[in-house]
Amino acid sequence: MLPYPLALMEELSLQSDSRILLVVLDGIGDLPQDGETPLAAALTPNLDELARDSSLGLSTAVLPGVTPGSGPGHLALFGYDPLVFDVARGVLSALGIGLDLGPDQVAARANFATLADDGTILDRRAGRISTELNERLIESLNTEIGDIEGVSVRLYTESEYRFVVVLEAQDLGGTVSESDPGRVGEKPLAMRSQSEAATDERTAAVLNSFVEHTAEVLGDLREARESDPQVNAVLLRGIGKKPSLPSMRNVFRLRPGSVAAYPMYRGVSRLVGMECLPIDLSGEGERTPNKLAAYKAHADEHDFLYFHVKQTDSYGEDGDFDGKKRQIELFDESLPALLDWRPEVVLITGDHSTPASLKAHSWHPLPVMIWSRWGRPDGRRFTEADCRGGSLGSLRHLDLMPLAMANAQKLRKYGA
Amino acid sequence: MLPYPLALMEELSLQSDSRILLVVLDGIGDLPQDGETPLAAALTPNLDELARDSSLGLSTAVLPGVTPGSGPGHLALFGYDPLVFDVARGVLSALGIGLDLGPDQVAARANFATLADDGTILDRRAGRISTELNERLIESLNTEIGDIEGVSVRLYTESEYRFVVVLEAQDLGGTVSESDPGRVGEKPLAMRSQSEAATDERTAAVLNSFVEHTAEVLGDLREARESDPQVNAVLLRGIGKKPSLPSMRNVFRLRPGSVAAYPMYRGVSRLVGMECLPIDLSGEGERTPNKLAAYKAHADEHDFLYFHVKQTDSYGEDGDFDGKKRQIELFDESLPALLDWRPEVVLITGDHSTPASLKAHSWHPLPVMIWSRWGRPDGRRFTEADCRGGSLGSLRHLDLMPLAMANAQKLRKYGA
Repeated sequence: MLPYPLALMEELSLQSDSRILLVVLDGIGDLPQDGETPLAAALTPNLDELARDSSLGLSTAVLPGVTPGSGPGHLALFGYDPLVFDVARGVLSALGIGLDLGPDQVAARANFATLADDGTILDRRAGRISTELNERLIESLNTEIGDIEGVSVRLYTESEYRFVVVLEAQDLGGTVSESDPGRVGEKPLAMRSQSEAATDERTAAVLNSFVEHTAEVLGDLREARESDPQVNAVLLRGIGKKPSLPSMRNVFRLRPGSVAAYPMYRGVSRLVGMECLPIDLSGEGERTPNKLAAYKAHADEHDFLYFHVKQTDSYGEDGDFDGKKRQIELFDESLPALLDWRPEVVLITGDHSTPASLKAHSWHPLPVMIWSRWGRPDGRRFTEADCRGGSLGSLRHLDLMPLAMANAQKLRKYGA
Repeated sequence: MLPYPLALMEELSLQSDSRILLVVLDGIGDLPQDGETPLAAALTPNLDELARDSSLGLSTAVLPGVTPGSGPGHLALFGYDPLVFDVARGVLSALGIGLDLGPDQVAARANFATLADDGTILDRRAGRISTELNERLIESLNTEIGDIEGVSVRLYTESEYRFVVVLEAQDLGGTVSESDPGRVGEKPLAMRSQSEAATDERTAAVLNSFVEHTAEVLGDLREARESDPQVNAVLLRGIGKKPSLPSMRNVFRLRPGSVAAYPMYRGVSRLVGMECLPIDLSGEGERTPNKLAAYKAHADEHDFLYFHVKQTDSYGEDGDFDGKKRQIELFDESLPALLDWRPEVVLITGDHSTPASLKAHSWHPLPVMIWSRWGRPDGRRFTEADCRGGSLGSLRHLDLMPLAMANAQKLRKYGA
């Protein structure tokens, strides 16, 4: 039986032409500084106009007090309980760079790192090396390593110091602990099976050999002056296999599309069966014009679109209140282009809060607004304070897809 | 697997120096009389100042419409689902008077009572006899009774008409029905095993013999003029064994302490692994100065403190609106002394509502406030009406510990 709300959605969903736009302003929830949050301080005429006719509420992403990572926050938004569908970060990263993992593959997220002479970690990010150096190192490592103990090992650049390791062989398990202790001053950990299964033992053994072998290759590259002296180790985390999630196509009877530029968000949207719109991903950052161009060209192929805005979170993580406010204003400028698609339902919220004062993800409930012809308009702005006590009340992210579906008149009556 | 939220808390909790103060104003929730509840009518300058900078909400103790006893209400506040951890009232009473029940012990709560000649109950409390008479009767009964069918039977005074019965033997069950029908005009019930187990049959048989034997001894004492003529029976309820609850130390990685004067609350706090601060318990009633003295002397040994205020409930039970209001004002006077501990998080609520107009516990959601540096201040007072539509929204008592932990920055992120 599928967990809430999927089983109910599978039972009640109707295919129809009505359109749902889900806008995720990453990390949008905040705390007031001098009485105002970035959402309250930003000048957002377009958002204000839409909000006035919307129902508002405060939504808890996962559970009260729980600070979600981006993966769990997004899964909850899409209606997939992250406490049930526990997806390894390595899997999300692999999907995000376009790999479609199969049942014989195990993915891990990896960092190039710097160890001191005594083996303790000096820098978990090897001085944040360039993506270009990352690509050269990955090419060399792929040439040198190939197979370990009959297991194919392939590496893929993510960006800067980050890459993805994909193992492939029959009888490989995915339940293995991480090598990255998460802080400097400690030694990398040996990876271990977290079950009794021989398949997990095998994965752990191969990954431990991989870490050793990689250190040797990196040593050779440094001697040949083909690397940076501070790149002398790799750290692995988020090891796992791709879980088989029910597709949004089948559960919600939607043709879902995703408009996101960053790998992580493309990955999680593909995991639930969304099609990533073909965005020009050259360059770095938000790439809003590219996203809007893809949206304009391809939105009509879908009846559900997820539009992701990353920079609100990035400025929150940097503690930059004004930068976050400015990103909200930039989003406001692009809102009319999104509404040109003429969605029947517009749902705007975030995957988690990232208060600028906290410089980190947080547990605070997210402001949420649902605009539709069938809403109860609250006549307010889209701010944390205005969403408090709105028509949607206090809810959970898992409740949002059912509400969007209902407002799009895509759910049949329950019972007679 | 531990029930919500304990498994998640066990996974995410971090030990740190930050401090959480949980104040339980027993039975604080009320209904308006002439438009105001006791909280609204009370003059509470200290509470008002703290509330202005706090996040507010309305929290349901157990489930909507469910009127909790003090045990379930407190367990929910501490994060222990009372629908899962079903603790017998006899066990709570036993723990409350300082008995540390073992696995071979079964406890029951007992009343001295008055039966009519036809065996029906005239007074479930035997005219609320004095604690002094209770102590004399218990001494005689302990001398006369001793063992029944190889089972040790010990009685302990609680206060006034209330005492605790503790059986001890191997192979004693704890799943037995009560003798107290809960109302006058009916006859006491025979206690029965509520399972097929011989161990439960044995406990029921011993307790039924105990009730008979006690009536004989009380008859002898009345003839010898060593008792009050209206004490001629005992009624037993809340029979059970002490459950093994996971300790707050292990689940939340806290050093939890309890500041409560009444046995019941000391009992329930010990059950979840709190250490009772050494309060001078001589005298009766709230004993606020004694509690504050213990708090001042020992608070620094803990990073989580539960401070209990009983009299708000007592005046509610008596239907005394003004008395309840006065007790709130007295608490307000002691609030600065509590804040001297400099907690990072202050959580104030109750274990259940006790509306003065109802003169009893009720199901109404409780006003709750969380003060912390990381809150969203609602700028209001701590009243039922102001908590409505606050930033915390509608929540459950089980959500409160996770929120307090999050605000104290004692929880790591969930997922990546």
